[in-house]
Order: sequence, then C-alpha cells, then structure tokens
Amino acid sequence: MRIGIDVMGGDNAPQAAIRGAFIASESLPSDVVQILIGDSVSIQKEIGEQKNNFEIVQAKTSISSGENPTRAFTQKSDSSIAIGFKLLKKGEIDAFVSCGNTGAILVGAVLSAKSVDGVLRPCIMSLIPQINGDYSVLLDVGSNADCKSETLYQFGILGSLYAKHVLHKVNPKIGLVNIGEEPEKGNFVAQATYQLMQSSKDINFIGNIEGRDLLNSKADVFVCDGFTGNVVLKLIESFYSLFKTRNLEDQYFDRLNYETYGGTPILGINSTVIVGHGISNDIAFSNMIKLAYEVENSSLNEKIKLVIQHDED
Amino acid sequence: MRIGIDVMGGDNAPQAAIRGAFIASESLPSDVVQILIGDSVSIQKEIGEQKNNFEIVQAKTSISSGENPTRAFTQKSDSSIAIGFKLLKKGEIDAFVSCGNTGAILVGAVLSAKSVDGVLRPCIMSLIPQINGDYSVLLDVGSNADCKSETLYQFGILGSLYAKHVLHKVNPKIGLVNIGEEPEKGNFVAQATYQLMQSSKDINFIGNIEGRDLLNSKADVFVCDGFTGNVVLKLIESFYSLFKTRNLEDQYFDRLNYETYGGTPILGINSTVIVGHGISNDIAFSNMIKLAYEVENSSLNEKIKLVIQHDED
Repeated sequence: MRIGIDVMGGDNAPQAAIRGAFIASESLPSDVVQILIGDSVSIQKEIGEQKNNFEIVQAKTSISSGENPTRAFTQKSDSSIAIGFKLLKKGEIDAFVSCGNTGAILVGAVLSAKSVDGVLRPCIMSLIPQINGDYSVLLDVGSNADCKSETLYQFGILGSLYAKHVLHKVNPKIGLVNIGEEPEKGNFVAQATYQLMQSSKDINFIGNIEGRDLLNSKADVFVCDGFTGNVVLKLIESFYSLFKTRNLEDQYFDRLNYETYGGTPILGINSTVIVGHGISNDIAFSNMIKLAYEVENSSLNEKIKLVIQHDED
Repeated sequence: MRIGIDVMGGDNAPQAAIRGAFIASESLPSDVVQILIGDSVSIQKEIGEQKNNFEIVQAKTSISSGENPTRAFTQKSDSSIAIGFKLLKKGEIDAFVSCGNTGAILVGAVLSAKSVDGVLRPCIMSLIPQINGDYSVLLDVGSNADCKSETLYQFGILGSLYAKHVLHKVNPKIGLVNIGEEPEKGNFVAQATYQLMQSSKDINFIGNIEGRDLLNSKADVFVCDGFTGNVVLKLIESFYSLFKTRNLEDQYFDRLNYETYGGTPILGINSTVIVGHGISNDIAFSNMIKLAYEVENSSLNEKIKLVIQHDED
C-alpha cells in the first residue's frame, strides 16, 4: 500500500508530518510505502538517511488555512493538496493524509476523488471516545451544514459500514442525534430521518440519542448534520483542553485528546482521504497515517459502493 | 412579590420543592410570599408550623412527564401546572416555578401567559458557567427545534436583555453559535442570522462562536436554535455527571452541576416562569425560586416589551 502525506499542511509543517511518518512506519507492515509530498529539500534534510519505505514527491506551494478552498484547489495545481489528489487519481497512492486547508481537501474530495455513485453527499466523521473504552463514530462533523433526511439516512449507512469494517463492530448500533427519545421529537429533518432509519434493513437503528448520551456507549454511530456535529466535536475538544489547563488527570478524559484518534476520514468518496487538525503534532500525524492504512486495508469504499448501490435498486 | 411553586412536579415531589422553598425563604426579602401548589394535606404535613411567608393552594392532580403536553394542559384544569398558570393570569402570583412536564409548561406559557406582542417565538434559556467564574446565557435550549433567522435574531435580543437586567452585564456580548468564524460559514439560517445581527443596533454582536468557545467567556449570550442548544446543554450536563462518576474534583467543573443554576427561564412571554429538571433536588428548587425572584424583580418582561416593540416600529 502507498500512503501519501501532505507534509506542508498544518501549523507544525513539515516536521510534525515527517516525524509522524517515522513513528507510523514502526508499526505499519513492511510493504507500506509513505510518499511525502512537499518541498523536497526540507523533506530530504529532515529524513536524512532513513529512506526505507519513504519516497518524496515535490510540491512547490501549499494552500494556507485562510485561502478560498475552491479557488485555491483549482488554481494552485502545484500545491501539496492538489498533487495529493492527482496521485490518488493516477493510482500512484492508495490513500492521502493532510492537515492542510480542510475546505480545499473537501473540494479535492468532491472534484477529484469524486463521490461514490449514489452517495448524495460525502461527509467527514470523527471518532468519539466512549466511557466503556470503545470509540463511536460521529458524522457529519462539518462538511454539510444543511442536510435533507435522505442525506442523514445515508450518513447512517456510511457510519454503520465504517463501524463494521474499520472498527470491527458486529451489527453496529446507529443512533440519531436528537432532542428527545420519542420519534416525533426534534426538527423536521430529524423527524423524517427517524422514519427512514426505522424502516431500513441496512442499518441497526436504535432510535434517538440525546446530547447526554454521546459519551456513554449507547450507540456505535451518532448521526447528525454537519452543523450539530461540528459544534459537538469542538465542545468535546474544548472540554479536553479545559481539563488539561486545569491540570486534571483521568484515564477517560485523557482519551478525549484529539491526538489519540488523529484525523477524520472523508466518507462516501472513491478514495481513502484523512483530514487532520491544523494543530496536529507528530503523534496525531502518526495516528492519522495508521488510520489511513486501516481504512484502505478494510476496502471500506468498495463496501460502501455495494450497499449504497444495492440500496438504490 | 408572590412566587407560585408547583410542588407536584419532578421526580422528588413534593419534598424537594417544599424543602427548596424553605431554603430559598432564608435569603429572599421578607415580603416575598411563596405559594405552594399541590396536595394540601401532604404540603401541610411537610411544612408543619413553619407557616411564615407560605400559602397553600390545593391542586388535585399533576401532569406526569409521559403525558401529551397540549392535551394534558388543556384537559387537566385541576393540575398543579394548570392552576399555576391560572394564578399567574389572575395576578395572584407574580412568578411560577415548576419541574413538571416541560412540554405542558411551554404550552401553558404560550396558551395562557402568552407571548409578548411582537415576539415571534418564546424560548427557554440556560445559564452556562464560564471559565472566568461568570455565567453566560445559552438560548434556545429546546423549545424551538426549527428556527427562522428572524427568530434567532430575536433570541439575541431576549438574551441580551436578560444578561443586562438579570445578570447585570454592561453592553453584553452576543455570539451566534456557528461552525466557523467567517460570516459566510454555517447553515443557511445561521448565515442569514449573521447579517441581521450585524446590522442591528439593539445588540452588541461579536460574531460567530464555535463549539470550542462556549465555555471560555468569549460571549455573554450564545444564540442558536433549540436543537443545537438542547444537544449542547445535555452534553455539558453529561460531562459534569461523568466527572462526578469518576470522582474528580475541580472548582470549575463543579459549577457545571445544574443544581447551582437551577432552572431555565422562559423568555418572551408576559409572565416570569422558570422550568426545572425533573431530577431537581431541594438545592435546585431553592435556586430556581431565587432566580424567579431576580427575574421578576428586574422587570425583564417590561424591558423586553419596550425593545421588541420599538424594534418593530
């Protein structure tokens, strides 16, 4: 497997990405090659003699966090993000990891990697550490602020397949994020989504999940629009940083550190792409790279294709 | 001032309400009379000789948490909630506090107390403890799952007036809960609300607030629809309970205990009504009763009327 890494994306570029790649290489199978995409001189300087399982692809520029995503992605063809997607398209890499401009990565995902046929809207997901020691999937966490019920229903399918094939959960439990337990609770979209999910044979729908149940292992997948999911994810992250600021220590709360789960896969496109925080350090990068390996190794995208296209028949 | 208390509402009725009333009476001004609404025999038994500043109003039944709010409120005219609203209407009480069926209280608020002329949708708010030791207002926290931008804009006004007149904040900072800082971020309603808020002279709008900034004192008022607000509030409450389950101690996290802020006022109606958690204990009740006093004493509803009606001109 060949995993491309954007070493120019993120606040700690390129060191964090390159060091993360080193750490990841220690636990990845020996046939995994990491393709470091960025300024070849600085990459060369950083990797020195440690060349096993690493290749360098030159990228002259990068897309900064403040740039307009669509404009930057289409115009900066020599940027590390644009080159990453070109390599994916040509089959020269199997997966791509970046902590660069999230918007530009999403644009690349839609314009270059493209949605799986039948997927209404690709989305980004995050792992949420649960109190029982496990992880659950939260999606969408920001790419679709406005969603129709059909889109949310599909997020349920995407999340279910991720939980099954990447997290190896048997018959994963799917919950709809809502403001009450009863089917008639919530906004219009949530009410309609409840009906779609309840009558589906493709997911194991367990009903509505309230804000108080997002950490207590009640479901394996929490489905919501990207507005709610983004607010929830950032609130959880802020809890962790408050926790640290106040010098508290706890095994569970420590797991809320984004570094431990690294990045968020984009689901519903034809390639494995993992997006990370701009603030990612080497540990976060190494976990993102390992996640890219697991997702690609699970053939998740093929499995999504099968279910979505069967569902459409 | 006369404050009515539904002693039949909540999981710990009637003891929690009555003991809460006792605790509150110790710090309320001597001219505040508490009207205990419920089964007079059990109230009498509970209060014994301590009759100063207490009156009893008999209510034969109560509305349980599982009942249909509209049907129960309109049909059970002898329930503690229906009687509370009757007393408000007749001016026999100035404020009403209940931990009963939230839906039924909201129905009472709209059908009996009624919205202030010009208010599109009344809403419920909660205080969110901030890291600087202060409290900020979050609204709506559940009564309006679907909101138009005009409604969210009005929530900004309601929250601003609450922060000013009840929390005594000077020129309170109003933030719009969103998934990015830029004006064009978020769902369609958030984008439109941003424009309304930015051009308003009635509020001190400081821009979008992300999930990570809901606890760090960035704004005095956080505006969102009742879907997002409810998920956020319940998630924060679950953090507190996880914190306690794990035997952690911290001055800030301890403040996230709902007991300390008690209940959530309904804003935008013609009376002071405070709704509490079903699980409220005596401390929570006493804080709700003191909150009812503060809100009513601030003449908040009159101030809301002035601004909303001036804003409409």
